[in-house]
Amino acid sequence: MDFTPDPHSQRLGAELREFLDTEVIPAEAEFHDQLATAVDPWTRPPALRRLMDGARDRGLWNLFLPGEHGAGLSQLQYAPLAELSGWSPNLAPAAMNCAAPDSGNMELLDAFATPEQRERWLTPLLSGEIRSAFCMTEPDVASSDARNIGTRIVRDGDSYRITGRKWYISGAMNPEARIFIVMGKTDPDAPVYRQQSMILVPRDTPGVTVRRAMSVLGYDDREHGGHAEIDFEDVVVPAANLIKGEGEGFAIAQARLGPGRIHHCMRLLGMAERALDLTARRAWDREAFGGPLATQGTVRTFIAESRITVESLRLLVLKTAWLMDTRGNREAHTEIQAIKIAVPREIQRILDGCVQLFGAAGLSQDTPLAAFFAAARGLRLADGPDEGHLSTLGRAQLKAYRPQ
Amino acid sequence: MDFTPDPHSQRLGAELREFLDTEVIPAEAEFHDQLATAVDPWTRPPALRRLMDGARDRGLWNLFLPGEHGAGLSQLQYAPLAELSGWSPNLAPAAMNCAAPDSGNMELLDAFATPEQRERWLTPLLSGEIRSAFCMTEPDVASSDARNIGTRIVRDGDSYRITGRKWYISGAMNPEARIFIVMGKTDPDAPVYRQQSMILVPRDTPGVTVRRAMSVLGYDDREHGGHAEIDFEDVVVPAANLIKGEGEGFAIAQARLGPGRIHHCMRLLGMAERALDLTARRAWDREAFGGPLATQGTVRTFIAESRITVESLRLLVLKTAWLMDTRGNREAHTEIQAIKIAVPREIQRILDGCVQLFGAAGLSQDTPLAAFFAAARGLRLADGPDEGHLSTLGRAQLKAYRPQ
Amino acid sequence: MDFTPDPHSQRLGAELREFLDTEVIPAEAEFHDQLATAVDPWTRPPALRRLMDGARDRGLWNLFLPGEHGAGLSQLQYAPLAELSGWSPNLAPAAMNCAAPDSGNMELLDAFATPEQRERWLTPLLSGEIRSAFCMTEPDVASSDARNIGTRIVRDGDSYRITGRKWYISGAMNPEARIFIVMGKTDPDAPVYRQQSMILVPRDTPGVTVRRAMSVLGYDDREHGGHAEIDFEDVVVPAANLIKGEGEGFAIAQARLGPGRIHHCMRLLGMAERALDLTARRAWDREAFGGPLATQGTVRTFIAESRITVESLRLLVLKTAWLMDTRGNREAHTEIQAIKIAVPREIQRILDGCVQLFGAAGLSQDTPLAAFFAAARGLRLADGPDEGHLSTLGRAQLKAYRPQ
Amino acid sequence: MDFTPDPHSQRLGAELREFLDTEVIPAEAEFHDQLATAVDPWTRPPALRRLMDGARDRGLWNLFLPGEHGAGLSQLQYAPLAELSGWSPNLAPAAMNCAAPDSGNMELLDAFATPEQRERWLTPLLSGEIRSAFCMTEPDVASSDARNIGTRIVRDGDSYRITGRKWYISGAMNPEARIFIVMGKTDPDAPVYRQQSMILVPRDTPGVTVRRAMSVLGYDDREHGGHAEIDFEDVVVPAANLIKGEGEGFAIAQARLGPGRIHHCMRLLGMAERALDLTARRAWDREAFGGPLATQGTVRTFIAESRITVESLRLLVLKTAWLMDTRGNREAHTEIQAIKIAVPREIQRILDGCVQLFGAAGLSQDTPLAAFFAAARGLRLADGPDEGHLSTLGRAQLKAYRPQ
Repeated sequence: MDFTPDPHSQRLGAELREFLDTEVIPAEAEFHDQLATAVDPWTRPPALRRLMDGARDRGLWNLFLPGEHGAGLSQLQYAPLAELSGWSPNLAPAAMNCAAPDSGNMELLDAFATPEQRERWLTPLLSGEIRSAFCMTEPDVASSDARNIGTRIVRDGDSYRITGRKWYISGAMNPEARIFIVMGKTDPDAPVYRQQSMILVPRDTPGVTVRRAMSVLGYDDREHGGHAEIDFEDVVVPAANLIKGEGEGFAIAQARLGPGRIHHCMRLLGMAERALDLTARRAWDREAFGGPLATQGTVRTFIAESRITVESLRLLVLKTAWLMDTRGNREAHTEIQAIKIAVPREIQRILDGCVQLFGAAGLSQDTPLAAFFAAARGLRLADGPDEGHLSTLGRAQLKAYRPQ
Repeated sequence: MDFTPDPHSQRLGAELREFLDTEVIPAEAEFHDQLATAVDPWTRPPALRRLMDGARDRGLWNLFLPGEHGAGLSQLQYAPLAELSGWSPNLAPAAMNCAAPDSGNMELLDAFATPEQRERWLTPLLSGEIRSAFCMTEPDVASSDARNIGTRIVRDGDSYRITGRKWYISGAMNPEARIFIVMGKTDPDAPVYRQQSMILVPRDTPGVTVRRAMSVLGYDDREHGGHAEIDFEDVVVPAANLIKGEGEGFAIAQARLGPGRIHHCMRLLGMAERALDLTARRAWDREAFGGPLATQGTVRTFIAESRITVESLRLLVLKTAWLMDTRGNREAHTEIQAIKIAVPREIQRILDGCVQLFGAAGLSQDTPLAAFFAAARGLRLADGPDEGHLSTLGRAQLKAYRPQ
Repeated sequence: MDFTPDPHSQRLGAELREFLDTEVIPAEAEFHDQLATAVDPWTRPPALRRLMDGARDRGLWNLFLPGEHGAGLSQLQYAPLAELSGWSPNLAPAAMNCAAPDSGNMELLDAFATPEQRERWLTPLLSGEIRSAFCMTEPDVASSDARNIGTRIVRDGDSYRITGRKWYISGAMNPEARIFIVMGKTDPDAPVYRQQSMILVPRDTPGVTVRRAMSVLGYDDREHGGHAEIDFEDVVVPAANLIKGEGEGFAIAQARLGPGRIHHCMRLLGMAERALDLTARRAWDREAFGGPLATQGTVRTFIAESRITVESLRLLVLKTAWLMDTRGNREAHTEIQAIKIAVPREIQRILDGCVQLFGAAGLSQDTPLAAFFAAARGLRLADGPDEGHLSTLGRAQLKAYRPQ
Repeated sequence: MDFTPDPHSQRLGAELREFLDTEVIPAEAEFHDQLATAVDPWTRPPALRRLMDGARDRGLWNLFLPGEHGAGLSQLQYAPLAELSGWSPNLAPAAMNCAAPDSGNMELLDAFATPEQRERWLTPLLSGEIRSAFCMTEPDVASSDARNIGTRIVRDGDSYRITGRKWYISGAMNPEARIFIVMGKTDPDAPVYRQQSMILVPRDTPGVTVRRAMSVLGYDDREHGGHAEIDFEDVVVPAANLIKGEGEGFAIAQARLGPGRIHHCMRLLGMAERALDLTARRAWDREAFGGPLATQGTVRTFIAESRITVESLRLLVLKTAWLMDTRGNREAHTEIQAIKIAVPREIQRILDGCVQLFGAAGLSQDTPLAAFFAAARGLRLADGPDEGHLSTLGRAQLKAYRPQ
């Protein structure tokens, strides 16, 4: 066992740290101003486009993607970089073409798409030309359980016909999200995990209607394309748009989940670090009861507890990344579940404390804390609520003890 | 000791319950639609104006105000009514002319205003014709400690000249908020608690600039007039606008705080009850792991814990109300602090759990849960963060043991 | 609603407070010394016998018992007195003949015993001459669910024959516990709640073997007669020893539970108050980091949080007592469950904090804190673990929403 | 970074696992019986002596000690072995001659003792012939802060004269603890961290009086020599008994603390693992509400949460061990503090949950859970309460932000 950081990752980290400090964080205010005054508030504004050029020039591009089409980093190598990008979660991941849901979608296409599908969609995604969405969650069912999915994908000659409603489709309010990966049932009579398939649906296909933007605790998250409710009414696409094959939907979704979850956790660590950094500064700036907040026992205790939490969660994330790299995502299932449960919840708690220390400013638009808080809160529900994960993780642990 | 509810309060409660079920809650969607499409999103929309007429007709008007100018209820009698109004916190309190900050401002004027001040401002407030704001919090200091206030109120012949910046002035984005009660320092050299004064500043006085709307966890709270940042630049008002006298600001603020805090707590109990009501229904509607959520141990446990918390907090609120009624607000200081700390925090926790059970819908605009959550979160900072209150409450408890 | 304390209760409270301060608490060290050096460490030592005389003289006797044979207090009147007795939980309740399990057994006999049974057992219990035990819990089953009970009570002519094993039978290590009330099944084929009966078994009946003393977190609780494991092997008693009738065991147990639980909660409040009193003194005595602990923010926060918790739990206990008095124990079922869950758990947490502030002394035999902690911990399991109660309480709450 | 376990450590771990399963755990009952019936309950009973022979034969001896006199393992290599020994914390560490406080005392002597001191005391300690105690904590002061120590060590010709009182001196009730390492002040006028010295005091030196056994939550911990209160009254020892030099006491204590703390944390992880193992078995054995506990959502959730906690804490412990190995104990100070705070507290919480699931048996002498709970609780106070550590850890974090 060896906790020495990877040198390649460290070099990239130094570059990214400099990029953050000199370009990304200074651009945050401009970015928000551009969004606030844009004709279409969902589209990537000029400040982000400029940062994309900067990231590309610095070699900070597609870092999430292992293999030859990306930066070729392992999860363990990517972890500290994804964490750093969490310091400016609306800008840095997108600037580096590493933002959800595109990163997951690119992984998916890199792993399962046909050469034609790759050419048509993966290439412009890898270059950052277009964006994408992943259409899984549905409003009427507990769709974190893929078995509940109601959307139908029906074969009709050389085409598939898609009907259903999706919501909380992140990024899809952005008209640049040109391609939707849609999960639906092709065969409701197949075995439970062979009923689902995934299919590529270009945004401008007739029958696709983006109905409205869903909010998360008061935020519409326009910074990264919002969360759309989308109707698919008799949407017809060529049969060649199917990904991998009929009945493969569940397996593809599973493959996509692991990296998606761990990348969220990595970025959350970065949000926590930035929040603690801001809070430590604030604690010296603000006076109360005759001295800076930083000299008070309750504030010290909060900082200490937060430090302990962040350190132990980071180690759990790194161990999980290592497991994914060395044994595969499936073997890391328990650990992925563990971080998916623990990281957003504990970091929400830390952010809650930082807000508390900032007072009203902490809840306002003048610090990033409230938005970070909402992001962490939202991630406790993305891919299904913690409660379900806790139950299945516990069941798996207990299984080994079941009497025969 | 006797826990039998007051009969008069019960009669009013039955009326209010019926008002809620048949008029208020059914109007919520219409109210939000009107706000979303209004030319001025901060003004009271028609749906609210209609409900105000309904509440007045039912005798559900100014219930918060003890004495002859209000409904004449004690705090203990008002408590269950304020709680019920919390079931629809954006509509019911405003419909009944019992919404913050107007209720606190009316109490203040009823207690301290001159006959001319009463006539000019209290009368139209009592009738619901206009609204008002209470300008205390400042962006640059921990202004929950009145000693830190930076705004100056300087005597200048027959006038006062006011200079300073305030923020998170609730209700002030609504142009119907015609009158601002402004706290500032008249004499920085006086003893610490005699430096502050309060003065009436009509909204349209030259030098008053409403700069922007502050947000709370992504919400602009347009439903109740938002939270404004306001500049006062050389604002001149007649000396007769001073309330009570120079140096009385701190004492007036203290007098206003008690009822304001307990009324917030009462309404939070109602929010918790509505959230639990919605959650219980949801728990039977949603299936997961082979049965309704309502049959699962973790859900039952959450409901049980929430019930215990709400019951014990309600009793603490009622006891506090009784103390205020029988011994005065000052004697109830410890209890007021206790509920101010415990109620928003614990109810935030309950709401967090309800959101969790609802999944994405719980964070969305489609249920009231996320907005309730933000409201509870905000109240942990209103009038100063919990941490300060915990420290002073603890200090007061320990004082009795200090060796001589 | 009225929170004014009852005058009669207040007078008795003043007497009890004086008794505690001048006689009971000063006798604690002597009491423990006598136990440590006694030939039989389970018997009531002289210090306790002396205090019993004192309590009787002061009219502080059998306060728990409503009606003509006891002090005639309501639960609401008894509550503050039981709480005060919790300041010295090993001595005060026993001195006042109000200690568990005797109090519950006397209630039971007062309600259900025949004249002969009363004469033989209730009379010497009411006078404090003998003590008693309640034999319900069994080692091999989750016996908080009466349906699981394995002990058999079989009719055999004019006698009953009892066979089974019980454990954690509090008080039974004390040879003065002359009479055991034993729960067992008379008819395993009857409807589920009609299978059990209760029967009086004198301690010295052949076949009764007190096997060993069970411990609770390292304590053998000799101060109140320990917790015995008892074998009943072919124990024969006259049929006239049956209480009330065959099949009445479950109903009697239910009747006994309510007062037993609320009295434990009342005493726990007293333990918390004494612990906080000791802690406040300690916080001024001990210096750390340049000042008394009492001046530190973390200590103040702990004291404040503890105060809020104790106040709200006390109100919940009082409300429950009032419900028992005015609507009966059955109607107070939800509230009894609520306090049974919340009070031991929250007071354990407070005691944990007090221990922490005391350092090693807090865990030692030199303060009462560690023993209080163990008592609170134990009560989270007595009458079944919290988890079961939470589940049934939650189920009951949700039942009202079940779709038809 | 690489999470692959060390092969040498794994081989020893397999041996230890087998030793535990076939010899140690099966001997636990015998060990307790021997203690219960021993003439001197503080002395190592025959069962332990037999296991010491077994451990030595298996090469499981002095594993804690790096360098040539011990097993030569790094902290990182020792970690999984110490953890395993925590499965049977009363027997396994002592059997392997790795038990506190001897392990820390041997480290200390190995690092700082003169050849004569080594020969006289370290040699018989390394062979397990004798045991030892570390006399630092005092009853009257917050002695976790070495500056508060009241014991005096005064030079007197060729001797030192020692006067003071110590308590909670673990292991010292065992008469086999032949040697005490005593911390005291040699020069109260020296700079704060140069006032203290350490000196070797043989147990049978005149003036040494072991006064009484201190308890921890009702336990006297006779299994590992108890916790003694000791008077040193004009105790005279040769000047050659001083360790390292006058004024070196604080530095030696600091050097000793790091390994001591991390070894406690390692063993606590093992206690948690055994408790969870027992609990998982119990959860399948016990039925409630119509099925094994193991099938209930609340139980699964508890198991899952516990698993997440143990995994993340273990990683933090391993990272700390690696830091100690690669950068030295001083550089690992923050991490040592972090685990010292988090591990006992979180594992106490897990043990509390395991107890709850076991019911009364969990608090009894029939499972190891209650004793584990008390051990974890005690460790939250050993070397000073968590609160102090939280404050200094937070202060250190904030220091980097202090404005100049």
